[in-house]
Amino acid sequence: MPPVSESYRRARRAQIVDAAARCVARSGFRGTSMSDVFAESGLSAGAVYGYFSGKDDLVAAIIEQVLAELGAAVDAVCTAPVPPPLDEVVEQVLEILDRAGPDGSLARLAVQIWAEAVADPVLRERLAGYYRQARAGFADLARRYRDDGALDPRADVDHVAQVLTAIGPAFLAQRALLDDVTPASFAGGLVGLRPPPGPNGGTVLADH
Amino acid sequence: MPPVSESYRRARRAQIVDAAARCVARSGFRGTSMSDVFAESGLSAGAVYGYFSGKDDLVAAIIEQVLAELGAAVDAVCTAPVPPPLDEVVEQVLEILDRAGPDGSLARLAVQIWAEAVADPVLRERLAGYYRQARAGFADLARRYRDDGALDPRADVDHVAQVLTAIGPAFLAQRALLDDVTPASFAGGLVGLRPPPGPNGGTVLADH
Repeated sequence: MPPVSESYRRARRAQIVDAAARCVARSGFRGTSMSDVFAESGLSAGAVYGYFSGKDDLVAAIIEQVLAELGAAVDAVCTAPVPPPLDEVVEQVLEILDRAGPDGSLARLAVQIWAEAVADPVLRERLAGYYRQARAGFADLARRYRDDGALDPRADVDHVAQVLTAIGPAFLAQRALLDDVTPASFAGGLVGLRPPPGPNGGTVLADH
Repeated sequence: MPPVSESYRRARRAQIVDAAARCVARSGFRGTSMSDVFAESGLSAGAVYGYFSGKDDLVAAIIEQVLAELGAAVDAVCTAPVPPPLDEVVEQVLEILDRAGPDGSLARLAVQIWAEAVADPVLRERLAGYYRQARAGFADLARRYRDDGALDPRADVDHVAQVLTAIGPAFLAQRALLDDVTPASFAGGLVGLRPPPGPNGGTVLADH
């Protein structure tokens, strides 16, 4: 056999993960078999098993890739030296999420991963770790907004971060079902929650 | 055989659905077998099959019950003659969701249902219908807030409704993973997104 380069192996592995992710986005983890992955990737069983020991191993690789995409999306906006206004941040994160995954299938993949995490304590802990990391990034962002005078000084940045972290998954869960939800409409809806300017403002949200 | 009353049948059916829902909340749809349901309910296979033809039938019954609970929670607050402030509405809806499902397991059940809907067009259309209905209720609520001067008059109530509809699922998805998320912290985080009162207010959300 000719020697196989590391970059060839990486590309071939990514090809298999992408094919498997397309299957899962279409049929769910439950409805995807290894045979489906062979057919979708155009590779033989032997070729696929050269990279993955079985379905569980492949599922783990899909999850790894999706979480990496999600993490990169959050990092990209949270760590900007001068953060844009919050609704632009939200729209940017949602734009990235909307295009992520093979063929923009992140929404359908993400709900599969949440469901797997219910029955799998190891995956649940990894997903919880991802949530905590995202929340820490959003808490930093909320603190910067607050210090700049753009958020109510009484705001609890950790609670604000809970809500900001939830916006991505919330968008994806609705996007997986309804086509009329877009990053712009969702970010616009968040703006719409703002009370009107002036002396009557703020009555929609009670003080605590 | 003695005659069996309708109310007896209803109670027995509910007992089976509750037992099955506990199994699914623990192990997912994928990890739940009919044998698990027999054991959890304390009933024989024959007794269970007298009500449900198999796992798919039982899954449909669980979903039916969860959607009914979700719908009732939204209706209860959206149709109040004088709606409370938005953050109280949010906290109330989340309190109901947090206690719903057998043993408060709605969060773990809901993610299972989203995942099933990816691969099941009939379920996806039903779930989409539920989202549309919830959004219509929240759009009415947003319109009332706006007409009362509590929301920005430029707010698009349909986009606001997209965000409000997403808050429940967003809370449940995070709640299924992290114990520190509560209805009060989440509603408080929404309040925290409000800009500070005064002339510098509103800079965190850009105008569109």
